[in-house]
Amino acid sequence: VRITEVTVTPIAIKDPPLRNVKGIHQPYALRAVLEVATDEGLVGLGETYGDEPNLELLRGIAPLLVGHDPFDLNGLDRLVARFMTGREDATTHELIGRASVDKSAATVLAALEVPCLDLVAKAAGRPLVDVLGGACRAAVPYSAYLFFKPARHQPDCGYPEDDWGEAMDADAIVAQARRLIDEYGFQSIKLKGGVLPPMDEVDVMLALRAAFPSHPLRIDPNTGWTVDTSVEVARKLAGVLEYLEDPTPTIAGMAEVARRIDMPLATNMCVTEFGHLPPAIEQQAVQVILSDHHFWGGLRSSQRLAGICRTFGIGLSMHSNTHLGISLAVMTHVAAATPNLTYACDTHTPWQVEDVVEPGVLRFVDGSVPVPSGPGIGVTLDRDALARLHEQYLSCGIRRRDDVGPMRAIDPEWRSDCPRW
Amino acid sequence: VRITEVTVTPIAIKDPPLRNVKGIHQPYALRAVLEVATDEGLVGLGETYGDEPNLELLRGIAPLLVGHDPFDLNGLDRLVARFMTGREDATTHELIGRASVDKSAATVLAALEVPCLDLVAKAAGRPLVDVLGGACRAAVPYSAYLFFKPARHQPDCGYPEDDWGEAMDADAIVAQARRLIDEYGFQSIKLKGGVLPPMDEVDVMLALRAAFPSHPLRIDPNTGWTVDTSVEVARKLAGVLEYLEDPTPTIAGMAEVARRIDMPLATNMCVTEFGHLPPAIEQQAVQVILSDHHFWGGLRSSQRLAGICRTFGIGLSMHSNTHLGISLAVMTHVAAATPNLTYACDTHTPWQVEDVVEPGVLRFVDGSVPVPSGPGIGVTLDRDALARLHEQYLSCGIRRRDDVGPMRAIDPEWRSDCPRW
Repeated sequence: VRITEVTVTPIAIKDPPLRNVKGIHQPYALRAVLEVATDEGLVGLGETYGDEPNLELLRGIAPLLVGHDPFDLNGLDRLVARFMTGREDATTHELIGRASVDKSAATVLAALEVPCLDLVAKAAGRPLVDVLGGACRAAVPYSAYLFFKPARHQPDCGYPEDDWGEAMDADAIVAQARRLIDEYGFQSIKLKGGVLPPMDEVDVMLALRAAFPSHPLRIDPNTGWTVDTSVEVARKLAGVLEYLEDPTPTIAGMAEVARRIDMPLATNMCVTEFGHLPPAIEQQAVQVILSDHHFWGGLRSSQRLAGICRTFGIGLSMHSNTHLGISLAVMTHVAAATPNLTYACDTHTPWQVEDVVEPGVLRFVDGSVPVPSGPGIGVTLDRDALARLHEQYLSCGIRRRDDVGPMRAIDPEWRSDCPRW
Repeated sequence: VRITEVTVTPIAIKDPPLRNVKGIHQPYALRAVLEVATDEGLVGLGETYGDEPNLELLRGIAPLLVGHDPFDLNGLDRLVARFMTGREDATTHELIGRASVDKSAATVLAALEVPCLDLVAKAAGRPLVDVLGGACRAAVPYSAYLFFKPARHQPDCGYPEDDWGEAMDADAIVAQARRLIDEYGFQSIKLKGGVLPPMDEVDVMLALRAAFPSHPLRIDPNTGWTVDTSVEVARKLAGVLEYLEDPTPTIAGMAEVARRIDMPLATNMCVTEFGHLPPAIEQQAVQVILSDHHFWGGLRSSQRLAGICRTFGIGLSMHSNTHLGISLAVMTHVAAATPNLTYACDTHTPWQVEDVVEPGVLRFVDGSVPVPSGPGIGVTLDRDALARLHEQYLSCGIRRRDDVGPMRAIDPEWRSDCPRW
């Protein structure tokens, strides 16, 4: 089998004004859809970041894949390594740790490896999960992902406002959780924190605990807090949180928090590439790692990460950026194939109103997504939607993620320094 | 695809009187050949230990595999874990570290996982290496494996003596190396030590260095030495060895040696299961791990181990017990698919005069075995040979490996305590 063509299509999808420590989501989020065709007539699908630096890398490497055997994933790894040599123009993803050449290479590798594995699975006539070792669970649990948000984008974004309304206090967040749980059946809850002063966010978590006494709870301020603030929050929320996610920056900072509290610390910011694992393990800085195949290097690298977590007794959960159905399906396959996935995964899915896959395959049952059963990833590209979302990309004018700029449109004095509190 | 039958055939193969720190090889070595048949008419092959405790486990679990999908390797893992619960009758393999329930489970899992992966590869019509991620090299380098040995088994073993003669001093070992290198083209050399007093073995290594100035050299006394002796040997062989293998017992012992010398330490004795990795890494006890899919849990576990070594900057090589062609082919496939295999692998192949696979596929070219290119493992079972070696198993009377007993037939005062020196 040989690859004959790699198509990279950038798309823009409407995104609600979700808040975080850096600022606020833009009115459009960018993604890229990959289609990898072979001489046997199969097409492998993938979804990754759609920011301009990432697109440039993908467009640069795409022609080099022609003639490559999709089974040869080690060869793909070498091809990406050669391609990245001398390219220091790393992609930037502010909320998933520091940019680095290694992470850019892993991101490019992941974007290409997923369609190749889709092709391998399709050639075998088996769902993707089967070529990853087989399903450890029939459905993958996700958490209700809560966000502080204003009612609408400012300035006016040109499309109708979402139907979630403003959520800037405990009552509104509890209502948001109730709606997400009613509609999707989520069994655990995550709040994107770092938006209100820390003690106000503690009160929000206590309100969630009161409203949902049996749902595991998490909060993620994206390194918005100092070590002392992190410790203070952890103490106030002892027995309330299943883990505290990225309260403070750096491995050293997390290690200091870990020494002073008795609550698992999770990260997708201070441990975001394999080189971060030895110091993090030596310093016992984190007890849970949130994997993400998009920037860890793909599905085989995700399994390598899972094997390290299993060996060192580190918990494993899964991070999410804004994504569409291809990524949700892939996340579900790899999570299903991971024995030691010890927590519900994150997903932004309920916040998206547009998709590139035909509806029907992906659904939430009691907060979990059943593993797609068709060959490969198991979802079908909706070509009309792809064309429409690509047009939206061309017209929206956004070319890279920026949570700070739109926040300054609301508050000209806005600063995104971390830690803030 | 469903498994319809699992056949376990114990065999005995003639083995030369090879010496080691525990004693001497018996006249027959035991192996077991696995055949896993499916309802689609494919048969997956495997080879593992043939000692009685291991056979009992394999015979016990074999019927439980009927109906299992060979793609479902995570399910196989769970099946083995359930089967092993309550079975404390661990297999014993004296020279590959301490017995444990975890290692027994990993050994059973490996025995069954390899035929399943052979089936997965055969279903795809691809060589095994391709379903392990693709070949990083077209051929896998092995080392010339030198042994001290008498001319013949004592008492007489009933079959003609081998044509290698006695090798108990430097001249004979150099001659043995020369013959192995002439016949197979090996590019590196390993001596099984722990037989002569340590300073005599140092002299043997210096003689090898003089005779083969450009071949990387290793010695493996199987924990025969104290920490002080290990340090003394390492200092005398500074600049001569590429690594020193298992000079002394335990992770703590190896760590102490490592602190006192400037030479990589390798092991297949103190780090032999995943639970050993965290303390070994914390104590910086070893710089090279010799993997072995037979007791590490199979090919996916070997890849997990390789991923950990890569992440922590630990070198990777491969251990060998006495084995036949099925295992040589599997070792070659998994080694070829491992990017960070940083040293030539061990193999006992030149010491065996019998095999269960049809000749032709496996050959040494400049000390390396080209990766078999046929579907799956790529070797064909020779049914006549299998039947004959099974008859030999039935008649030879040996039911588990014992290097001490035959040594006491030579030296009634023989003791196998380690460290000896």
